[in-house]
Amino acid sequence: MRVAVLGVGLIGGSIGLAARRRLGAEVVGFDPSAETLERALELGALDEVADSPASAASGAEAVFCAAPVAALPALVADAIAASGPGAVVTDVGSTKQALLAEVAGLDGHERFIGGHPLAGAETAGVEGSREDLFEGARWYLTPDQRSEGLLYDRLHGLLAGLGARPQAIDAATHDREMAAISHLPHVLANVLVSAASPGEETRERAAEVGRSFRDATRVAGANPLIWADIYSSNSEAVAEEIDAAIERLREAAELVRSGDRDALGAWQATARENRRRVLEADLASAPLLELRVAVENRPGTVAEIALALGRAGVNIEDMGLFPASDQRTGAISLWIGGRGEAERAAEIVAGLGHKVAPIPPAES
Amino acid sequence: MRVAVLGVGLIGGSIGLAARRRLGAEVVGFDPSAETLERALELGALDEVADSPASAASGAEAVFCAAPVAALPALVADAIAASGPGAVVTDVGSTKQALLAEVAGLDGHERFIGGHPLAGAETAGVEGSREDLFEGARWYLTPDQRSEGLLYDRLHGLLAGLGARPQAIDAATHDREMAAISHLPHVLANVLVSAASPGEETRERAAEVGRSFRDATRVAGANPLIWADIYSSNSEAVAEEIDAAIERLREAAELVRSGDRDALGAWQATARENRRRVLEADLASAPLLELRVAVENRPGTVAEIALALGRAGVNIEDMGLFPASDQRTGAISLWIGGRGEAERAAEIVAGLGHKVAPIPPAES
Repeated sequence: MRVAVLGVGLIGGSIGLAARRRLGAEVVGFDPSAETLERALELGALDEVADSPASAASGAEAVFCAAPVAALPALVADAIAASGPGAVVTDVGSTKQALLAEVAGLDGHERFIGGHPLAGAETAGVEGSREDLFEGARWYLTPDQRSEGLLYDRLHGLLAGLGARPQAIDAATHDREMAAISHLPHVLANVLVSAASPGEETRERAAEVGRSFRDATRVAGANPLIWADIYSSNSEAVAEEIDAAIERLREAAELVRSGDRDALGAWQATARENRRRVLEADLASAPLLELRVAVENRPGTVAEIALALGRAGVNIEDMGLFPASDQRTGAISLWIGGRGEAERAAEIVAGLGHKVAPIPPAES
Repeated sequence: MRVAVLGVGLIGGSIGLAARRRLGAEVVGFDPSAETLERALELGALDEVADSPASAASGAEAVFCAAPVAALPALVADAIAASGPGAVVTDVGSTKQALLAEVAGLDGHERFIGGHPLAGAETAGVEGSREDLFEGARWYLTPDQRSEGLLYDRLHGLLAGLGARPQAIDAATHDREMAAISHLPHVLANVLVSAASPGEETRERAAEVGRSFRDATRVAGANPLIWADIYSSNSEAVAEEIDAAIERLREAAELVRSGDRDALGAWQATARENRRRVLEADLASAPLLELRVAVENRPGTVAEIALALGRAGVNIEDMGLFPASDQRTGAISLWIGGRGEAERAAEIVAGLGHKVAPIPPAES
């Protein structure tokens, strides 16, 4: 398999390393910096370098656009235009709706499936690339009803081969969730360092801070150029999360002013419970069960199923598409961890109008 | 030296361990839990146990009240009443003004000096006690003009002997700073886990979170009973910090909605600079210089000097009081790290009307 990586920073470099070492892929890379490309070759992240995005994308079966968010629309357009009709094009940007809107008007947009791995930082360079960067990491994919099912299947398998856990999510939900779990934390970290800074109001010297403050503000002021792009590419969702945070803070201020210990304790206990639910959301690993689904080969079926399962938090550990010889029907196999999850998945898929075969015993 | 520890959790147990092993002190402890006391003896944190706060405090030269904030006023009152006229009484609570107001009316209040080590967690038990818990840790002290200078000096030396870096701060400033660097971060962490929780609005499943979210929310929902006390004992300062955070968030939402990349980048860069200033506030270690100050032995002089230097961020690494034979005048030696800092300290102390001797070369 030939894979193209456009933009060879930490993410692009790690895709190259993992694709070469784990999947035996041939990886061609492009980056605006010749120095970066040279280093990527030395590190073993690339087999060869290209002198333009188009020449890298040409002939690849999968093209990863791994540039900063603001550079993605043009890069994805180049990749779609230069790659063949059987190639899947994806990206790794941390916001999705704005990019999808730009891509929607392009010829060949059905070969583009947005992506976002929850691993590494957009800001780091190729030097930190690791073959195992995506091991166990969630990798969101944002197919829509126009996405080609076979290409989604190929991309899912490719990402699983890199060690990641792909999951479909619709772009709007993705951006709202990122606003809540990533962009809002960045905004609040900025507010915290501002509150603790010397020179504001009557504070003559910097407050002395401990580990918990360091932890809480680790992301404050993260790469200004990159983050300006992220905030502005997801501005409505981020602003709404800020508004919601302001509402919650108003209630908190009122509660604190009341000095009501019972109510404060209850508030704190609710936060404890919220944290537990959020951090324990990852399902424990469980034996894989195959869910075999009979489908009509109409556009959007794969995306529809993947999105419905993603919405319900069901993780598709692996998938396979098996078109029937008439090319109008076929089967999709989905491997799900744990019987309870598999049965839940079966119910959801059946609810979409597809036939689901009885679930066999777990693979041993 | 005989030291009493009233409340033997992580902090009390670590005070006991460090006082015994580093200073050869005899440590007597009291705790409402007999089991805790037994374990503290086994761990070597105590030489002996007492059956009441009063019997522990009786005969001690220094009494540490290390109970939760809500229990401190009664405990400190017991400790002052039971300890001798030469004993210094202190506490380790994370808010100070409310406690000082309660203590102010007591006979013997001049022997109480509020304290707050920035180490460990109020919520942890004796099991985690460590001799080196306070090594290099800031330990705030809140003397006022009624505090006895000799007792302040003894307490400062004792804390330095435990490995800590004591610094005087007035109680109101302390509580405002803690509101900014500790209590506000807890409030914001609670808001973050609430924003990411499933079941709110349209979110069906918990968002999947990465390390940066974990870091940012580590303190969310910290021990509800303890934190209800902390918020309510510092309610005005905490509520004001929340109000200020709301203002900053309003500006941030407006900025994000504008989508103005340059302005967003500038905002992010300011946060980066703020973080640098806050986290690099600790001075690098430097050779110690002695600042010798001639003073009149009037009440409050030591507190006045210590507070003025604390306000300016000058760290007193060590200090000594040398009363003259006439008991009306005397000298205070202050050891300060680095010539620049020492000269700044000399200027501040001279500005208070005291005579400062020329600074000799650094000790080798």
